[in-house]
Amino acid sequence: MKTRPILAAALGVALAFTGIIAHAEPDALPSWNDGAAKKSIVEFVEKVTKQDSQEFVPITERVAVFDNDGTLWAEQPIPFQFAFALDRVKALAPKHPEWKTEEPYASLLRGDVKGALAAGEPAIFKIIVATHTGITTEEFHKIVTDWITTAKHPKTKRLYTEMAYQPMLELLAYLRTNGFKTFIVSGGGVEFMRTFAEKAYGIPPEQVVGSSGKLKFELRDGTPTLIKLPELHFLDDKAGKAISIQTLIGRRPIAAFGNSDGDLQMLQWTTAGSGARFALIVHHTDAVREWAYDRKAGLGRLDKALDEAQAKGWTVVSMKDDWNSIFPFETK
Amino acid sequence: MKTRPILAAALGVALAFTGIIAHAEPDALPSWNDGAAKKSIVEFVEKVTKQDSQEFVPITERVAVFDNDGTLWAEQPIPFQFAFALDRVKALAPKHPEWKTEEPYASLLRGDVKGALAAGEPAIFKIIVATHTGITTEEFHKIVTDWITTAKHPKTKRLYTEMAYQPMLELLAYLRTNGFKTFIVSGGGVEFMRTFAEKAYGIPPEQVVGSSGKLKFELRDGTPTLIKLPELHFLDDKAGKAISIQTLIGRRPIAAFGNSDGDLQMLQWTTAGSGARFALIVHHTDAVREWAYDRKAGLGRLDKALDEAQAKGWTVVSMKDDWNSIFPFETK
Repeated sequence: MKTRPILAAALGVALAFTGIIAHAEPDALPSWNDGAAKKSIVEFVEKVTKQDSQEFVPITERVAVFDNDGTLWAEQPIPFQFAFALDRVKALAPKHPEWKTEEPYASLLRGDVKGALAAGEPAIFKIIVATHTGITTEEFHKIVTDWITTAKHPKTKRLYTEMAYQPMLELLAYLRTNGFKTFIVSGGGVEFMRTFAEKAYGIPPEQVVGSSGKLKFELRDGTPTLIKLPELHFLDDKAGKAISIQTLIGRRPIAAFGNSDGDLQMLQWTTAGSGARFALIVHHTDAVREWAYDRKAGLGRLDKALDEAQAKGWTVVSMKDDWNSIFPFETK
Repeated sequence: MKTRPILAAALGVALAFTGIIAHAEPDALPSWNDGAAKKSIVEFVEKVTKQDSQEFVPITERVAVFDNDGTLWAEQPIPFQFAFALDRVKALAPKHPEWKTEEPYASLLRGDVKGALAAGEPAIFKIIVATHTGITTEEFHKIVTDWITTAKHPKTKRLYTEMAYQPMLELLAYLRTNGFKTFIVSGGGVEFMRTFAEKAYGIPPEQVVGSSGKLKFELRDGTPTLIKLPELHFLDDKAGKAISIQTLIGRRPIAAFGNSDGDLQMLQWTTAGSGARFALIVHHTDAVREWAYDRKAGLGRLDKALDEAQAKGWTVVSMKDDWNSIFPFETK
């Protein structure tokens, strides 16, 4: 068979060419160490985007949903929106002399966060109402914008938006380059997140889904105004995430990214669709560069979702092992 | 002044050239008669899209919101979603022998719509609950898809989706060509509209905002399921439209399109923003080619919004005078 050497040579050239192409393409995920997690992401994206793939997904159906706290940015020592609320209590205190003796404000103003939250959810709700409602949506937007562009994280002394995870920023960009529409689906307040999501993550307001309070429409001297009422409209957590995806996005995502049991139903709902699906959990395993917490954490607990990820073969990212960089400001 | 003839000649050439350019560009709105309404649309789009315009609006902020019933498609003799509900009552009747004597079903099954609705809103709610809830979101999607692709309108004998207004389809396309993101903001059910909005209007599910019922997440044999509950979650009408724009889109639109008092707050909210804004009302004035109704209509009443449009200089489209074609199937 005289053709063999020719075929082999041709194959060699083809492989070399493939190699050149591969090396010529810059790595879209440089902060991800080579390993199973990174490999699973790239394999999924390639199989849904290549025209000749059996699992090709049309561009309009490439919807990816991301939890925010603990998935796109850090959430320790307390969720950043709660840090905003605490700062806001301090800022409003001069107008509320009664807070000196009224809980949970009194403890908060003494710097005793733990004491303030001893009463649990009712205390949190009281703080949210005092700091997030009774004002117009435009006033709230301005207050959050002022805070998010100036307040610093207690440990890193950086702006909170600088504590977005570098590997996740790369992942968002990588998915968008491949035709995905990226959404946030978070328990956080939707009006809070929208003030920075576009700048920090490249996610526009209309692709941010979150918890929301009731609003009231009112004409003030003929000018239409929306006032934030002290009533919850929708809590976008746990089963709420699957519900909000259906109600607000109206399309089942093909990829979902979370970090806690609060994301379990979103991951279940996403992966239960037909065709190629992808689910990933960010596991906080790096006590040195970030924080380490999972099954026993009060906030951001990852327990049931970790079991289900292992049972179903979802990708679990170990921040310690899979990420060579955590925050954008770190020297690489 | 010897230069005059030369200048005049140059001017002539310039005008002729401008003329050529103008003729070379195909009219994006051929079903709109030349007149104040069409002119106002084109002037608005040009002033917000031309880079050197003082009222230039960046592409990410070009959000346009459209009511659906009576604005994008017809709504007579009854809103099309209600026609679906009535057909569904008939389809379900064999499973509900008790409906033969129970109102409002008994009247409906005898073909007496007026009698069925004599009890007002409670009767309508009962019909919606019987036809829209107690099933999964996927089952509902299939039922609506089957109906919308087969049911015919009693007057035109056409599919309901063929009764989208040709001039509005041109307007949607024209806005998108100019970088606008087009949204539906309608009192109609969001899950109902999403079954056809992408095909009929080019509006993807995630850009459809509407009324919604509560959903329940349930694992059925391990498969996550969303069940439509017989409870209203949000009524997207009147002030609700301004609220849903804020909660679900999170950006104030720069252009809004409606046809009834139910759209008034959406138009107010849109036009109260700073910079260039546009508001348009479709006025049903054509009893021959469509229907004529306004201030005294039961459904789709246009009264307060018509007064406000006149007071504020919003564009009011007379379907009879401004549109040379109403439906795509008409011979032009």
